[in-house]
Amino acid sequence: MALLKHLSLNQITTEQWNLKEAALGCAKAEIPWISIWRHKMEEFGLAESKRIIQDTGLQVSSLCRGGMFPAATKEQRQRNLDDNKRAVEEAAELGTDVLVLVCGPAPDRDIDLSRQWVEEGIEQLVPFAEAHGVKLGIEPLHPMYAADRSVIVTLGQANKMAEKFTADQVGVVVDVFHVWWDPELYEQIARAKGRILGFHVSDWNVPITNTFKARRMMGDGVIEIRRIRKAVEEAGYHGPIEVEIMNQDLWDMPGDDVLALMKDRFVKHV
Amino acid sequence: MALLKHLSLNQITTEQWNLKEAALGCAKAEIPWISIWRHKMEEFGLAESKRIIQDTGLQVSSLCRGGMFPAATKEQRQRNLDDNKRAVEEAAELGTDVLVLVCGPAPDRDIDLSRQWVEEGIEQLVPFAEAHGVKLGIEPLHPMYAADRSVIVTLGQANKMAEKFTADQVGVVVDVFHVWWDPELYEQIARAKGRILGFHVSDWNVPITNTFKARRMMGDGVIEIRRIRKAVEEAGYHGPIEVEIMNQDLWDMPGDDVLALMKDRFVKHV
Repeated sequence: MALLKHLSLNQITTEQWNLKEAALGCAKAEIPWISIWRHKMEEFGLAESKRIIQDTGLQVSSLCRGGMFPAATKEQRQRNLDDNKRAVEEAAELGTDVLVLVCGPAPDRDIDLSRQWVEEGIEQLVPFAEAHGVKLGIEPLHPMYAADRSVIVTLGQANKMAEKFTADQVGVVVDVFHVWWDPELYEQIARAKGRILGFHVSDWNVPITNTFKARRMMGDGVIEIRRIRKAVEEAGYHGPIEVEIMNQDLWDMPGDDVLALMKDRFVKHV
Repeated sequence: MALLKHLSLNQITTEQWNLKEAALGCAKAEIPWISIWRHKMEEFGLAESKRIIQDTGLQVSSLCRGGMFPAATKEQRQRNLDDNKRAVEEAAELGTDVLVLVCGPAPDRDIDLSRQWVEEGIEQLVPFAEAHGVKLGIEPLHPMYAADRSVIVTLGQANKMAEKFTADQVGVVVDVFHVWWDPELYEQIARAKGRILGFHVSDWNVPITNTFKARRMMGDGVIEIRRIRKAVEEAGYHGPIEVEIMNQDLWDMPGDDVLALMKDRFVKHV
């Protein structure tokens, strides 16, 4: 039960709720943390979003998301960088020091070049983020998203990229759904010691009929969530644990029920 | 065009055809190789299948598939091993020296234990396979199949496992669909030098709505197929190249049309 003080609602888990509903829902359910998605924040605007969160006494575990660096033209890559700077400002204003990076896919077949653009994008963003007291958390996504969401697909790759910077500038985000299959998982979690900026939980079950909405509630799948949580703790991470689940069944439920289920499963399976 | 002498129809690409139709279709389309699936062979029986293939003058690039080693009980693992021995005998009888291994998923949440069972299964199968002149080709599957088809998900992992044996006993099968996303891909292909027992092509395109039938015809997706083919050749592989595509649209086409499209795309994109 002590673990509940680390519980964070990643806002996409209750996509049916706007930011105010989610904040009030968390307060009511005594969930201490929330992770904010930018499209949810934009509905209210930054100042009002900040006020709502402060009023409920919630802490913000991260802002989702920056990244999406690659693009076919230099102009578009510059616009992507500018957007990342706005995300950094928003994170700082909302009171979190973590901006999660979903790094982006390749605009064509050249995956190596896109990986280079990701690296360049991060490099260009770091000084700005540092000046705002915001750390960049590279989140490796499951390889099934390599073509449409992220060319960064393993924790090893994220670690290697993060290690080019100091631990105050760039770290990694470990999401069990994205990394559970990796034969190097525990070795790479240990390597990430001191650089883990976030830990996300959900579960994997087959069949997958929609890759974006494939996640399930903890306990409904095959991931060894507790084992991964302990490894992350051994690597020095004791921060908030976000429940991040895109799933239509959950989105069709009343938000309060999602939170109740989430708390129950969190205690049993995380 | 010289590459066409390496073209092999992996029989699952024309799931609408039985073995006889596939063999005759290949002969008519002047495709020199075929890869046989066991469920297709069983329709005719081993002896008749062998006769059909010999009559058409086709060469068999591989038998699909052995593997599926993990199981919750020792008895079931023994039955799985026995079935693998039958697959070895069938491969030898059909005139191919390559049995492709799709290694199997975990029966529960313990992925490490399943990986151990895979290793034990291969170890137990090797002497039997060797006695029959058949090599075992470990095919790493895309990580999105880790929960339902294979706990072996990277070429690095397959290489490591194969290296416990001689190159005459155990090698790896490189399928572009399964490995294209891997940041270590080219390094691991080079490491597999002398052990590559098969090369499979298809393509990846989003969205994925059915993981099993997700593949597309070469040229319809984002995979750098030619680059991977050249890397495989540099690693000493100059054998048959199988087109292996589970895709409902192709299965709904007349088989002859699939073969014509496949030849055209093979020349353009492989």
